[in-house]
Amino acid sequence: MDELSDLQRRYAELKERGPDLDLSRGKPPTDVLDLSNDFLGELDTYLSEDGTDIRNYGVATGLSECRRMLSDLLGVPADYMILGNNSSLSHMYNVFFMLQTFGINGSTPWSKEDGAKILCPVPGYDRHFAVTEDFGVEMIPVPMTDDGPDMDAVERLAAEDARVKAIWCIPLYSNPEGVVYSDETVSRLASMKTADPHFRIFWDNAYGVHHIFDEHRVADVFALSESAGNPDRVFYYFSTSKINFPGGGVGLVASSPANTRDMLTHIGRQTIGYDKITQLRTVKFFDGKAENIKKHMKDIAKLLRPRFELVIDSLDKAFEGTDIVTYKKPKGGYFLSLNVPDGCAKRVVRLAKEAGVKLTPAGATWPCGKDPKDRNIRIAPTCPTLAELETIMPIFCLCVKLAAAEKRAGSSR
Amino acid sequence: MDELSDLQRRYAELKERGPDLDLSRGKPPTDVLDLSNDFLGELDTYLSEDGTDIRNYGVATGLSECRRMLSDLLGVPADYMILGNNSSLSHMYNVFFMLQTFGINGSTPWSKEDGAKILCPVPGYDRHFAVTEDFGVEMIPVPMTDDGPDMDAVERLAAEDARVKAIWCIPLYSNPEGVVYSDETVSRLASMKTADPHFRIFWDNAYGVHHIFDEHRVADVFALSESAGNPDRVFYYFSTSKINFPGGGVGLVASSPANTRDMLTHIGRQTIGYDKITQLRTVKFFDGKAENIKKHMKDIAKLLRPRFELVIDSLDKAFEGTDIVTYKKPKGGYFLSLNVPDGCAKRVVRLAKEAGVKLTPAGATWPCGKDPKDRNIRIAPTCPTLAELETIMPIFCLCVKLAAAEKRAGSSR
Repeated sequence: MDELSDLQRRYAELKERGPDLDLSRGKPPTDVLDLSNDFLGELDTYLSEDGTDIRNYGVATGLSECRRMLSDLLGVPADYMILGNNSSLSHMYNVFFMLQTFGINGSTPWSKEDGAKILCPVPGYDRHFAVTEDFGVEMIPVPMTDDGPDMDAVERLAAEDARVKAIWCIPLYSNPEGVVYSDETVSRLASMKTADPHFRIFWDNAYGVHHIFDEHRVADVFALSESAGNPDRVFYYFSTSKINFPGGGVGLVASSPANTRDMLTHIGRQTIGYDKITQLRTVKFFDGKAENIKKHMKDIAKLLRPRFELVIDSLDKAFEGTDIVTYKKPKGGYFLSLNVPDGCAKRVVRLAKEAGVKLTPAGATWPCGKDPKDRNIRIAPTCPTLAELETIMPIFCLCVKLAAAEKRAGSSR
Repeated sequence: MDELSDLQRRYAELKERGPDLDLSRGKPPTDVLDLSNDFLGELDTYLSEDGTDIRNYGVATGLSECRRMLSDLLGVPADYMILGNNSSLSHMYNVFFMLQTFGINGSTPWSKEDGAKILCPVPGYDRHFAVTEDFGVEMIPVPMTDDGPDMDAVERLAAEDARVKAIWCIPLYSNPEGVVYSDETVSRLASMKTADPHFRIFWDNAYGVHHIFDEHRVADVFALSESAGNPDRVFYYFSTSKINFPGGGVGLVASSPANTRDMLTHIGRQTIGYDKITQLRTVKFFDGKAENIKKHMKDIAKLLRPRFELVIDSLDKAFEGTDIVTYKKPKGGYFLSLNVPDGCAKRVVRLAKEAGVKLTPAGATWPCGKDPKDRNIRIAPTCPTLAELETIMPIFCLCVKLAAAEKRAGSSR
């Protein structure tokens, strides 16, 4: 029997048993959530450290003790921060909206310009692209390297066209590749000459403390921007969603005092204050100490690391000695990115779905969902259990092999 | 000594003692907040009734048990509702943004039209005006009557000009007058012919269960709109902020299924799900029963009613037999609206401030903060204690009398 027939037979057998498993989204698993169940406990005070009654209205930028704890954790000045409700994505959308509609701190609203463009490192995060797409703003893909976005391309694009307005970045453990931006990358982003003097960096530090293997750090983008004379370039995002609970976390946006002052003129019309009860709960849960968050993240890593190892080992073994796939070992975060043979990603996702394994849609890692080579697949190893991953990975690897064999057979016919 | 000199002398004495009290904003007082302290207690489950893990991502429209409880409370279909984070104001802003930027369910984005206009019943709510102003949309004041907005004016404006896009309404216990919209008003709003077929009603039912004296009801604006052939006219807002805690409530927007479906295409790009933990806490606090919310509101009314009575009695007594002020006894809600002699409101607010009583800025009840007659003052009796109100009201009344006497003296000179 030839290889294709053999793979087809084995796939047909697998389909019979068809599990119902999901490798598609970056959700924390139950055992990780369980580490934070005390967050559901009683809050024994309703007064913040400065005597504010957190039950009532007010406090636009967030409780001081929560800002301080997150400042200690992230190395971002507390007075740069606006703490909001859960979902840092909503802050990203809100900042995008303000830049598009009003401008921030002297920038022309993008909606008033002819053809704003946003740089999108690829593979990248589908929800960043979806925010951009919602406003109909053009996305320019920029290739990722092992050190972050291809900075030669970024510098050239930003320098030559004033319609290039911003870049989406996930500097630590990028989604989906788990790449860590090098110091040189951060420095070049912070200091590069841009045709638009109001060029912005969307710095989504979603996995800022989400180490899985070794602990990595990225350079201080605020300090570098300021010393390069670009103090208002950076909008920084973070949330506690993947620290305790996505269903009730604290999201933050941080930016220069001049930027936040301007943003607050609009935010003050959007709300009379975000949820301070959740902020104080978050502080109390970690006893106000960044150190405790770091310890908590080590406990989380203990649960997530075996999942990553299982996925990586499965891929290593399944594709040893072949040139079917390429992938990087992620340095941390929530994902792994895999390139299958050109033209095969959609086929793999469909084969896997029919065999009972849901994957992130092929193309999701590219703007508008269109991967020009149809080859990139994002794997999210965190949510299934280890036992589920043991079922999933052989199915997934078989689907990749089958799609590749189909392609070879097709092209040899 | 003449009246003016006498008032000036008494005012000077008062200023000496200068308290530091606040009659400016519609905040719940401490004794009202204390009724909900169990909301800070332990949540003994993280599963919603359909088995959703509320700790994790997802559930765009809110937990079904929370939607059902609020549906029972408000008489709004549960499947019209999107439950969000605290602050219904943020939903109002978001809907306004969507109408302005994208249009909803077939309407042309207001930003693409030449000179959109919004009808604003006056006196009205400054935060409604601030949302509108943020987008630079023109506001047309419409006088309030004892039955709601002057419907002859509303119908005429909406019928004759397709640039008239929407109206802000607080149908039950309007801010600041405490007026209840009559059935006829609601019916005319729901059924009136409008030049723009996509005319919208912003139905801010902020005080929907916030009875103070008798319990009043407003007609069902959804049912009336639907039976009049305008099923997509209404955007309905409500929150639990003034039921338990403003600092951690559940806000909702409700609209027709066609409208909400369209809104969710954008909301799904703004967040991966609002705070479900707060939603489940809210359900558990009221044992899932609308009836318990109603009982809770009666307990709140017991605490707020004496404050309203003290304010009303003070005004009645201070101005008995004079024609200095006009005011309506509010039927419920959070405020009282007072007209002082034309040209005196700013003066009263300044006099009161200098005597230690902070009032809502004069003009706040008018679009852009500009009361053309400079006569309307909003009084917020809820937040001070009874003892504080006993200090505040004589000062306030004296300031009004002094400003009026100054005006008379000025005009007789």
